[in-house]
Amino acid sequence: MRLLDEEHISDIAVGAAILGSGGGSDPYIGLLMAREAIRQFGPVELVALDELDDDDLVVPAAGMGAPTVIVEKLPAGDDLIRAFHALGKYSGRAPRATMSIESGGMNSIRPIYLAARLSLPVVDCDGMGRAFPEIQMTVLTANGINASPFAMSDERGNIVLIEAVSNKWVEVFARACVMQMGAVGSIALYAATVRQLKAAAIQGTITLAEAIGVTARNARREKANPVDAIREAVGGFLVFRGKVTDVDRRITAGFAKGSASMAGSGDFAGKRLELEFQNEHLVVRVDGEYAATTPDLIAVLDSETGEPITTEALRYGMRVAVIAFPCAPQWREPAALDLVHPRYFGYDVDYVPVEERLGA
Amino acid sequence: MRLLDEEHISDIAVGAAILGSGGGSDPYIGLLMAREAIRQFGPVELVALDELDDDDLVVPAAGMGAPTVIVEKLPAGDDLIRAFHALGKYSGRAPRATMSIESGGMNSIRPIYLAARLSLPVVDCDGMGRAFPEIQMTVLTANGINASPFAMSDERGNIVLIEAVSNKWVEVFARACVMQMGAVGSIALYAATVRQLKAAAIQGTITLAEAIGVTARNARREKANPVDAIREAVGGFLVFRGKVTDVDRRITAGFAKGSASMAGSGDFAGKRLELEFQNEHLVVRVDGEYAATTPDLIAVLDSETGEPITTEALRYGMRVAVIAFPCAPQWREPAALDLVHPRYFGYDVDYVPVEERLGA
Repeated sequence: MRLLDEEHISDIAVGAAILGSGGGSDPYIGLLMAREAIRQFGPVELVALDELDDDDLVVPAAGMGAPTVIVEKLPAGDDLIRAFHALGKYSGRAPRATMSIESGGMNSIRPIYLAARLSLPVVDCDGMGRAFPEIQMTVLTANGINASPFAMSDERGNIVLIEAVSNKWVEVFARACVMQMGAVGSIALYAATVRQLKAAAIQGTITLAEAIGVTARNARREKANPVDAIREAVGGFLVFRGKVTDVDRRITAGFAKGSASMAGSGDFAGKRLELEFQNEHLVVRVDGEYAATTPDLIAVLDSETGEPITTEALRYGMRVAVIAFPCAPQWREPAALDLVHPRYFGYDVDYVPVEERLGA
Repeated sequence: MRLLDEEHISDIAVGAAILGSGGGSDPYIGLLMAREAIRQFGPVELVALDELDDDDLVVPAAGMGAPTVIVEKLPAGDDLIRAFHALGKYSGRAPRATMSIESGGMNSIRPIYLAARLSLPVVDCDGMGRAFPEIQMTVLTANGINASPFAMSDERGNIVLIEAVSNKWVEVFARACVMQMGAVGSIALYAATVRQLKAAAIQGTITLAEAIGVTARNARREKANPVDAIREAVGGFLVFRGKVTDVDRRITAGFAKGSASMAGSGDFAGKRLELEFQNEHLVVRVDGEYAATTPDLIAVLDSETGEPITTEALRYGMRVAVIAFPCAPQWREPAALDLVHPRYFGYDVDYVPVEERLGA
């Protein structure tokens, strides 16, 4: 156990936004919320699964919806507490701790905010090791953990509880309802025992996010190249450097879908990059050749500062570097890979690990 | 208290379909379900509110969705039991009885089916005294009774629970989810104490439906004119006799919306009728003049047999009589009328009681 203070959270937010693969929402909003909560309620305990009892119940908390809209409608935080309490009440068991369901700028921080307000520990693990757009897209699903009971609340105070026959059906009903909430809601889901999580969750992801954030901060302080430092920290590959020439973004069925084009510079002069996303970056092509695909991670960084740029922040004219790096090994098991395969998202391409595509 | 057997239920189904104002679904499906349940589990107790304790909890049960689809997908009944149990579990109180939320061919019978299977009494009252398309359209809403907690289930076994800040918000989330269920789901809602229902519900509606059904049956047996007998039994007015010349029906946002045209015959020769519906008949015009509007009841009857024809059964060429009759007086109170006013449905016409429009 160690205590997370405001500085830790800043580093986690930056690192998680890189792990978020363009999704998980803009980190700064979550950061402001969590800092305020820690100022008011004190530091938050970060614990490993090993520090809890095997029968303890852990309830992840997150935001759901189109990130584009989440940026426009600052969450008050009460809806997250409401969803968390609704799930606890419904399941009839008091949660012992909370955790992130995904790594992402905002969805790594929201559980810390909740933990501060409710004086609960946050577990150093999550269900994706990155961010993905749909509820069932977790390694927890692949390991038989139910997303149900699922609780969602909005800023008005509405609560929807879902007990579905599969995690995909949770996604169907939750998506229909979050659209009615104006494309943004707070959720609690995948309640699981520590024993279940030890077998299924991706562990150490908060610590990993923090380490990436510290790397980026140090590189900036030392006037080193933050992009290279981050790429090394995540064991990744430089896919591209260049300028954003086009962004096509639309909100469809509660998601922010779209694509971006970039023109290369430096070593990449004359090359062209195409990036496609659905809340998160899904595939990237250079001159028409796939460079990386889901479930491997694709991050867009400011080419000077190394700051991660989420899909909703991407703008024409930005000078960026694109890096790609291997997903958590759990995603490469067949049952997990099926959930997030490029073909699931409509791309007619095999999954080839990024280190095989780019490591030659 | 009296016991409802198979014959009573047949009469109730016919009468309730007339009260259903074209909605509440085709009576025959519900009838088959309820008969089967009574054969298997025995007759059902019909009780008045006065026969229960003021603190007893009553939980209405119903179907929701587009009637057109409900006809195509025969409900198994398990989803109704599942929704009812989910609401009981969530509210933490055992329901003492069930009731109809609306009068309609199927939604008057579903609670009887559920009562047979669970050995509970059915209360002789409902929340509309007719059928209406949206969740919040009850006199219970106008009397401050919450539709939340609301439970919905489908044939697959999915359960959605809604705790919303208003009954209109229940409708919003429930409609979004029922569309994902394929436009048909079973629901439990408006859990209320007997004390609340004594002040708010429309009482005696099962008995009224049965009396109308008996009238229709007797008239057919005596070779009398069933349309006239029914019109007299409900204190109504003959709006039209004629032939259906056009039906325009579409499923929009989980509703069966549409309109029908008829060409007059007999006393109505040369006249033209227009009927508009959204699951239920909402307004009827003869030669462009409004003859009756929501919340007054509009029923389309087979001109020979007097059998009620629901909106989804209406077909080109049918020879029909259209009658209209006064709604329950509770609907004419301002708070209730606002919920179901013609203007709510988009018709630019004042509400004038049908006896003033046609009673001259």
